[in-house]
Amino acid sequence: MITLYHARFSGNSHRVHLMLSLLGLPFREVEIDLFKGEHKQPPFLGLNPWGRVPVLADDGLVIRDSLAILVYLAEKYGDDGWYPKEPVERAAVSEWLGIAGDDVVRGPGVAMLTKLLGDYVKADYDDALKRAYTLLKIMDAHLTGRDWLASDRPTIADVACYCYVASAPKGGIDLAPYAQVRQWLRRVEGLSGFVPFINAVPAGSAAA
Amino acid sequence: MITLYHARFSGNSHRVHLMLSLLGLPFREVEIDLFKGEHKQPPFLGLNPWGRVPVLADDGLVIRDSLAILVYLAEKYGDDGWYPKEPVERAAVSEWLGIAGDDVVRGPGVAMLTKLLGDYVKADYDDALKRAYTLLKIMDAHLTGRDWLASDRPTIADVACYCYVASAPKGGIDLAPYAQVRQWLRRVEGLSGFVPFINAVPAGSAAA
Repeated sequence: MITLYHARFSGNSHRVHLMLSLLGLPFREVEIDLFKGEHKQPPFLGLNPWGRVPVLADDGLVIRDSLAILVYLAEKYGDDGWYPKEPVERAAVSEWLGIAGDDVVRGPGVAMLTKLLGDYVKADYDDALKRAYTLLKIMDAHLTGRDWLASDRPTIADVACYCYVASAPKGGIDLAPYAQVRQWLRRVEGLSGFVPFINAVPAGSAAA
Repeated sequence: MITLYHARFSGNSHRVHLMLSLLGLPFREVEIDLFKGEHKQPPFLGLNPWGRVPVLADDGLVIRDSLAILVYLAEKYGDDGWYPKEPVERAAVSEWLGIAGDDVVRGPGVAMLTKLLGDYVKADYDDALKRAYTLLKIMDAHLTGRDWLASDRPTIADVACYCYVASAPKGGIDLAPYAQVRQWLRRVEGLSGFVPFINAVPAGSAAA
């Protein structure tokens, strides 16, 4: 049985939740309360010394890092489409996973967290905006004439990049000029098994 | 023929240079002068709209992102050891690639760049130090009883994490308390084909 230790508030967690749902895999959820700092205390630190969600446990194997989990789930449970073996597509997936782990988080991800949580996060909002608009410009050009980021089918690259781009408007980022990006978001949302990213600050939390 | 567009100054570039050398692959080098901003201008932007080194071109395929290139080279030219297929080792490699792309760069990487380049980089040195010491603590504990980060053999995880950890002292970080990490660095340096990371600021450059 798969167990997902995650937080509904976390976009990195959503990547894994979305992948599990797209693959139709049953799993047990353990919600980690980030606002109570559960991720920085035992017993969670025993699962992940980095103190970060998500963590996936599957049959004794514990995997930290959302992108590592996507690779694992695609290889173990997906067909070749989600993490294609063909070198050109594999390279494109790898490139977009790198962007998902860096620009996507530090751009629209940080912008959204700053808008939602204010001083609770210590981040440079202007830097996040700059990164976000660079990302959107490159992504929009890349998606011109393409339906998906790395292949003619959806891959884990699309799953990894989706949530923070989708929630960019919550970070004060205007997606209106990026028609290709908006169409791609609608395509992801149309996939069978899609689950939305719900990232409202919980009522009564330290940051509410 | 493989062409590597890189900068000797860049740790991300060193990852790829090291991997090519460990695999014994011949390649053509094109040095991109970061201090003249060649990475942010045509023709380089045509190769990589992100304006970052390294870029690898191999037989018509162009790959951006150092970690994506490591996966590509290991799968195309390496034996299974460099990017193991066995799920537990594969998951560990993926986790450490995530750490290489995030904590390793934003910790010791940024600390070193700040020390070497001063105001030329706009970075939060204290934040970099905090990330670096968290990384070193976790890495040292992880390497206790292990020779390599993700397997009983060296993998692309070791290649990816090496250079910025090795050059941490240039960032004002003391490696003395991290005996396991220091031994691991020596192991990487003992691999056949090892090439050192030379990251002195070029004389006469804008940052010198």
